[in-house]
Amino acid sequence: MHIDVVTIFPEVFGPVLSSSMLGIAQDQGAVTFAVHDLRQWTSDRHRTTDDYPYGGGPGMVMKPEPFYRAVAELKASDPTSATIVLVCPQGRRFDQDLAEDLAGRERLILLCGRYEGVDERVRDLADIEISIGDYVLTGGELPAMVIIDAVTRLQPGVLASHEAAEEESFSWGILEYPQYTRPASFQGKDVPEVLLSGDHARIAAWRRVEAVRRTAERRPDLIPSADLTPEERAYAEKLITDTFKEGDFR
Amino acid sequence: MHIDVVTIFPEVFGPVLSSSMLGIAQDQGAVTFAVHDLRQWTSDRHRTTDDYPYGGGPGMVMKPEPFYRAVAELKASDPTSATIVLVCPQGRRFDQDLAEDLAGRERLILLCGRYEGVDERVRDLADIEISIGDYVLTGGELPAMVIIDAVTRLQPGVLASHEAAEEESFSWGILEYPQYTRPASFQGKDVPEVLLSGDHARIAAWRRVEAVRRTAERRPDLIPSADLTPEERAYAEKLITDTFKEGDFR
Repeated sequence: MHIDVVTIFPEVFGPVLSSSMLGIAQDQGAVTFAVHDLRQWTSDRHRTTDDYPYGGGPGMVMKPEPFYRAVAELKASDPTSATIVLVCPQGRRFDQDLAEDLAGRERLILLCGRYEGVDERVRDLADIEISIGDYVLTGGELPAMVIIDAVTRLQPGVLASHEAAEEESFSWGILEYPQYTRPASFQGKDVPEVLLSGDHARIAAWRRVEAVRRTAERRPDLIPSADLTPEERAYAEKLITDTFKEGDFR
Repeated sequence: MHIDVVTIFPEVFGPVLSSSMLGIAQDQGAVTFAVHDLRQWTSDRHRTTDDYPYGGGPGMVMKPEPFYRAVAELKASDPTSATIVLVCPQGRRFDQDLAEDLAGRERLILLCGRYEGVDERVRDLADIEISIGDYVLTGGELPAMVIIDAVTRLQPGVLASHEAAEEESFSWGILEYPQYTRPASFQGKDVPEVLLSGDHARIAAWRRVEAVRRTAERRPDLIPSADLTPEERAYAEKLITDTFKEGDFR
């Protein structure tokens, strides 16, 4: 997979893209990245990418032309079909399903706007607009990195163990079970006995129950769409009801 | 405000923290950052921060001791009361309300775990666990940067105009209105006439209606808790109902 990024802050991407899993994924050839400075597609001496908003108001708005030129040139430079993503607060909320969808594309072009505003006509360039959450950031650069991380780790061969992707948070639509490592006792806090038992069936059952319990307690909103057995669903719903009754919910 | 970050990848933070708004905020003295390598709090020759999970399973789990030492030393190094944040997929979902809450704290200590797993006992260190969204990332570093960005831009004086923070997405609990800048006509797409009218009352009314409409169409889940007039609420609910009727909702 190839990912292009269009941004006015190309310099912030370097260390993130070259370290840890993203660096390894590139070394493996699972993904290639190209970060482009939007200013190369400006046409004035000052390389202007924003201008005052029509109708007044605070802040500046990013101009449409540089984005249009960027997309045209990037599309023409490579015949691989590209999905154009505009990263913005008004987009579809990013989640693991969307990460899996994007991970299957051959090529992504991520357009990073400043959050203050991007000319409305830039949206017409995008196949999809994505928001990583309901909070205000300075720009689309951090969200682009988040999307890149989530999508790259799903590329075949990138994770050391394929199982690792299967067992973690959100993969069943629920939160992950509690994890422990050595020491078995630390500051009076002991690892649950079952995890030391060597009884794999009992461990698997305990983990599943704990994952369901944690989800019901912390994220009851995930339960309706979670992949649960009828017994697990009944257990989760009882936990949610009991928590409501206690009156200390959230 | 002061923000400490504890991570095994301190090198990825540099360019993000020094560029754009975050760099300016530091220059202004509105915020100070200190990024700490978790490995300085390990005690073995290999500076080990993770170990195999009790009970088996794929992946490694981050050990508790280095985090405990880190928090103890960082707390002791500065008498300013600190809010300890564990960045993890099981945490409370980050949103603008939580950003505003954290922005009022004097000091934050952000603990970045690998997403594969952190020993359960590390959670006891945290005043709050935060997740930036329902997707799986490699580690807590990008989420920590997202929290830092959202919180820093809310510090007094950081934004050029205080109004900018008030008018943008999520500040009324709804999405932002469409923005346009020059040219007035671009590739056959014209700026709406009202924005060229100079009639400020009409512009304000149009923007408000468009923001409500966009929210109803794209994020109907935000409408129930949005700050709307009774007329706006009725309009939004009618749009949502009509969209459902058309059967092409989402």
